[in-house]
Amino acid sequence: MDDRYFDPAHRAIALPLYESVRGLPLVCPHGHVDPRLLAAEHYDYGTPVDLLIIPDHYIFRMLYSQGIRLESLGIPRKDGAPVERDHRKIWQVFADHFYLFRGTPTGIWLRDELANVFGITDKLTSASAQTIYDQIAERLAQPEYQPRRLFERFNIEVLATTDAATSRLEHHQAIRVSGWTGRVIPTFRPDAVTALDGDDWKQQIEQLSAVTGIEVTSYRRFIAALEQQRAFFKQMGATASDHGILDAYTAPLSDHEAETIFQRALTGAVDGSDPGRFTAHMLIEFARMSAEDGLVMQLHVGSLRNHNSGLYGAFGRDMGADIPVPMGFTRNLRPLLNRFGSDPHFRLIVFTLDESTYSRELAPLAGHYPALRLGPPWWFFDSLNGMRRYFENVVETAGIYNTAGFNDDTRAYPSIPARHDVWRRASADWLAGLVARRIIDEADAHEMIADMAYHLARQTYRLDA
Amino acid sequence: MDDRYFDPAHRAIALPLYESVRGLPLVCPHGHVDPRLLAAEHYDYGTPVDLLIIPDHYIFRMLYSQGIRLESLGIPRKDGAPVERDHRKIWQVFADHFYLFRGTPTGIWLRDELANVFGITDKLTSASAQTIYDQIAERLAQPEYQPRRLFERFNIEVLATTDAATSRLEHHQAIRVSGWTGRVIPTFRPDAVTALDGDDWKQQIEQLSAVTGIEVTSYRRFIAALEQQRAFFKQMGATASDHGILDAYTAPLSDHEAETIFQRALTGAVDGSDPGRFTAHMLIEFARMSAEDGLVMQLHVGSLRNHNSGLYGAFGRDMGADIPVPMGFTRNLRPLLNRFGSDPHFRLIVFTLDESTYSRELAPLAGHYPALRLGPPWWFFDSLNGMRRYFENVVETAGIYNTAGFNDDTRAYPSIPARHDVWRRASADWLAGLVARRIIDEADAHEMIADMAYHLARQTYRLDA
Amino acid sequence: MDDRYFDPAHRAIALPLYESVRGLPLVCPHGHVDPRLLAAEHYDYGTPVDLLIIPDHYIFRMLYSQGIRLESLGIPRKDGAPVERDHRKIWQVFADHFYLFRGTPTGIWLRDELANVFGITDKLTSASAQTIYDQIAERLAQPEYQPRRLFERFNIEVLATTDAATSRLEHHQAIRVSGWTGRVIPTFRPDAVTALDGDDWKQQIEQLSAVTGIEVTSYRRFIAALEQQRAFFKQMGATASDHGILDAYTAPLSDHEAETIFQRALTGAVDGSDPGRFTAHMLIEFARMSAEDGLVMQLHVGSLRNHNSGLYGAFGRDMGADIPVPMGFTRNLRPLLNRFGSDPHFRLIVFTLDESTYSRELAPLAGHYPALRLGPPWWFFDSLNGMRRYFENVVETAGIYNTAGFNDDTRAYPSIPARHDVWRRASADWLAGLVARRIIDEADAHEMIADMAYHLARQTYRLDA
Repeated sequence: MDDRYFDPAHRAIALPLYESVRGLPLVCPHGHVDPRLLAAEHYDYGTPVDLLIIPDHYIFRMLYSQGIRLESLGIPRKDGAPVERDHRKIWQVFADHFYLFRGTPTGIWLRDELANVFGITDKLTSASAQTIYDQIAERLAQPEYQPRRLFERFNIEVLATTDAATSRLEHHQAIRVSGWTGRVIPTFRPDAVTALDGDDWKQQIEQLSAVTGIEVTSYRRFIAALEQQRAFFKQMGATASDHGILDAYTAPLSDHEAETIFQRALTGAVDGSDPGRFTAHMLIEFARMSAEDGLVMQLHVGSLRNHNSGLYGAFGRDMGADIPVPMGFTRNLRPLLNRFGSDPHFRLIVFTLDESTYSRELAPLAGHYPALRLGPPWWFFDSLNGMRRYFENVVETAGIYNTAGFNDDTRAYPSIPARHDVWRRASADWLAGLVARRIIDEADAHEMIADMAYHLARQTYRLDA
Repeated sequence: MDDRYFDPAHRAIALPLYESVRGLPLVCPHGHVDPRLLAAEHYDYGTPVDLLIIPDHYIFRMLYSQGIRLESLGIPRKDGAPVERDHRKIWQVFADHFYLFRGTPTGIWLRDELANVFGITDKLTSASAQTIYDQIAERLAQPEYQPRRLFERFNIEVLATTDAATSRLEHHQAIRVSGWTGRVIPTFRPDAVTALDGDDWKQQIEQLSAVTGIEVTSYRRFIAALEQQRAFFKQMGATASDHGILDAYTAPLSDHEAETIFQRALTGAVDGSDPGRFTAHMLIEFARMSAEDGLVMQLHVGSLRNHNSGLYGAFGRDMGADIPVPMGFTRNLRPLLNRFGSDPHFRLIVFTLDESTYSRELAPLAGHYPALRLGPPWWFFDSLNGMRRYFENVVETAGIYNTAGFNDDTRAYPSIPARHDVWRRASADWLAGLVARRIIDEADAHEMIADMAYHLARQTYRLDA
Repeated sequence: MDDRYFDPAHRAIALPLYESVRGLPLVCPHGHVDPRLLAAEHYDYGTPVDLLIIPDHYIFRMLYSQGIRLESLGIPRKDGAPVERDHRKIWQVFADHFYLFRGTPTGIWLRDELANVFGITDKLTSASAQTIYDQIAERLAQPEYQPRRLFERFNIEVLATTDAATSRLEHHQAIRVSGWTGRVIPTFRPDAVTALDGDDWKQQIEQLSAVTGIEVTSYRRFIAALEQQRAFFKQMGATASDHGILDAYTAPLSDHEAETIFQRALTGAVDGSDPGRFTAHMLIEFARMSAEDGLVMQLHVGSLRNHNSGLYGAFGRDMGADIPVPMGFTRNLRPLLNRFGSDPHFRLIVFTLDESTYSRELAPLAGHYPALRLGPPWWFFDSLNGMRRYFENVVETAGIYNTAGFNDDTRAYPSIPARHDVWRRASADWLAGLVARRIIDEADAHEMIADMAYHLARQTYRLDA
């Protein structure tokens, strides 16, 4: 199985490339692991279903798509109505339907995770379900499966979490004072305080006031509070901010316009275009802050969140119903890039859910603006084919040195090594194809695989600094 | 030639996969075969050109693109002006230009059809043209080439035709009473009665009144007439409806709005936005009917019909001048999917002509909504590369079990086996690649090929019921 | 290295296909070589940097994207401020960063050019930089490296330049009178006289008046002047016009509307929509002229020019900051194609920077309209993967005979053979894959490779005439 995912035609070239990087530490500059896992010496995982099914919308969306209700998978409802509590039964449903994941990244991550993290090599089927449940449960109870021990075993060099702009970073503080030396750093994510049409925007602003001690009664103070929190995040190790938006539209407002809109929002009188215009402005403002404080700016663009309104009403967000829309970057990012795209202190990483933008817009932009790097294949495209399409559509125009290396972007902590392994194998496979066709030589390929597996992520996210 | 279309690198894996399904019956749940062919024990094909050239816009569009006038190919003009009537001459023109089809699906279908249906293995060239014409003509005259005999020889388990909502299904009735047991079922296609801006909409409504006995003088009666015809189609074996539309825009109207628009249409006073709004509403209404009567709803989206106005004026529709446009499903289908996308009685199959929607929109949607299945590669994409792109862009996100299997969508009756053969070979080839790279194991691949070749189409179209 | 770029799996089939065309003359029907190079018996190249770096935005954009300022590469500023003049130093910077081009077409063109034009097979690295600089400089000084000698050695059958509609074609005249028999022909490019919002439109019109002797004081005279210049270009050997536009929108104006807009432009009073409407009209007008005078019409669509405003201000156009946008052809070209798309005297070649339009719009359009041919992969897509995607997305629908063969579109004169070689190898590789999978036979493949490498370009551009 060690040559898995390689094209047999150039396996002999791919394998040594992969072998040269398989031992390198994992750099995890963007993801959604709950810092709570690592905040204390001991963490209680709950059952295998608590760990592997209930928090993972990659898995339960596929079951839902085949008519399995989320209640029967133990997903908590917002109204507190009862859901299935027999986790063995839930696990059995999952195993009975594991065939749905044939050919999917979720399928290969889980198989690898069972084998390489939990030491379980039996195929997950209806028949083996309960035995495997027992084996996972047994492992999770062992001290060497505690999150900090896995962190060390996984050889994670640095793990960035994603944190609300209003966070006090208690768990990161707890890690610091614990004396444990794993590098776990926060990322500044201000979406909730920026979205004027968010359900709880007013509460978010109150929380921002509370955490900063700056009463956010004006746009000016809003900016000041954000800058102060960025400084705090940076002091706690952050090297990046993150911004999740539906489209990449950027357009500056005058201070006066920004203040007027902000005041309308404070009085609950936003008009229809205010939220969009404010977000478009704030992206440029966040770029300015990045150019000043050096936090790398990430844009995750293009997901229409909570497409299924009924499901959102019953279960809330992140239920596997976020669906991409067509995107445009060339015109949308122009105002931002014209201000900061050539600023040596600024760095912007863009992620897309519209692959038609790779070759048409993002590779040409990344192949021109010094500040811009293209993020790795994201979400649905964090897969073997997604990576191949990315390499084939991006590199001829932008080269690999305008890309940001890999990040796993996961909340599924034990799946981290499997995800990096897919990237490293996909990279080796792609490079082997270039060598076999004499597009590059082997010496180049060896440098490139190390850059793709390790150095590019470190450098792009300024993790050396 | 038996290993044709397989990548030589994993031919040894692909061939047994293919062999395991090559004998399975053909399931044809969507297509445009004229039911007249099968309505009687004897059918007169006319000449080889009547059968293979004149009705097939896949073929004559390519000749037209190289400057050959449709008149010279015997295509009838609307004004009745004379066209070429020497079918040997037309066949010679086709043979002289058969090189245009190198590397196209039309080219390989025709070659396979000549070899495997007609037993002609000589290459079609200028020199062999007349001999091959004779051979085809001779075969067509034989009893074993009669449509019902081919149906049996092709091992067709079920063949769905596509029929106007106003049809009395005379030919399907004739098949029933004939005692012949081939399963030929209709599909309910109400485009013409729904398109308020259609040239002949008023006539269509009159016909709907006539066929149902319901005088369609109001929106309410329009709905009643449609529901009655759906019940009739269902009684005649139908399991599906079909809807061909330019875009997938859906948005509900109130009963009052729908009635008002409908009355405007009846009085010939539709305003500019009425047809679009009415179609957007009717799609949701058809989804409601589907959820109630269980007919599977098909959406064929994205073709701008009759792009070439001059040609349309001279020859009418289906002249090879239908050209796709960019499409969006995420926002357009949301109103429909929010109402019925999680309804276990509803099933929707979507087909697209914009491949950028596969990975961006359709796979994520199909990988979430229980009611949604993604139709196979359609029209221009019913090809080896089209299938490969479909597998590579769809399956990692949606799995194969949110796809609808294959349908041949053809009016070219003798090409049916060749088209299914391409799908079965392409499926085997793709699965062999997954096995070779150890993404799935051989046991999985064997189950998957049977599902792709046979079971998925049966199940998705509720043909077991 | 002679089997470079071929997939090892079918190398044995690809190599003889390639060998059968490697000796064919180069047909160069579209490009940007400066005719000055060939106007006289002797041309002074300047330094290797003058030849290879300073004029080539493919190269310096990549260096710029990694933070290297254009001033340090010797690119002249519009304000005349000093830039680096030590060309050895510039060359060293280039060599130090040549790793950026790994896996890019620029990288393989340069490597091939050094080896096959300059006879330098050492890898370009920091260490070898100065030696290689010396070697190139030494070669450039030799008589056999003079442009006319390279033209002969490259085996160029015809080279089309791209020339302003206002040009007197002095250099082409000089070639004619020189007695040298290399076929160098102009191409009529009227963008600058058509763009009403161009900075220097008025000057362009004055120049058009001057060169034609027709005082362009009205739309009617504007058309007359253009027609006269087209006749002059044609007399100087031109077989084509070229039109570079942001989108393919076409829509006719009445003569009165066109005249009104033109008069507004002459008085400096264009309103916002005038330039777009005028361009949309002029495209149809240019199509009419093409149908009359037989010049093949080329459309290069989709580049948003000068995206980086600061860079444009400092350095001007063609600085590697032209970025594609999403495109639509189906609706945009319909008015033009409905008028002239079936006219046997008209020929239109369309180039796109949005690959999603290949399978969705351009292949179906080219597979229908007799006048339309699809241009080869352009700009960022003039690459091994770009060609593969083009073959895979276009040919199944349009066949190869609705494509325009290859053109190198380059201003980098010594890179011409390398670019044609990539196309010929990519074509052979793709055809070999078809043969290996028995989609075509070897006889077909041999005819097709000759058509792709040579005949299609000749025929499409009417170079036989």
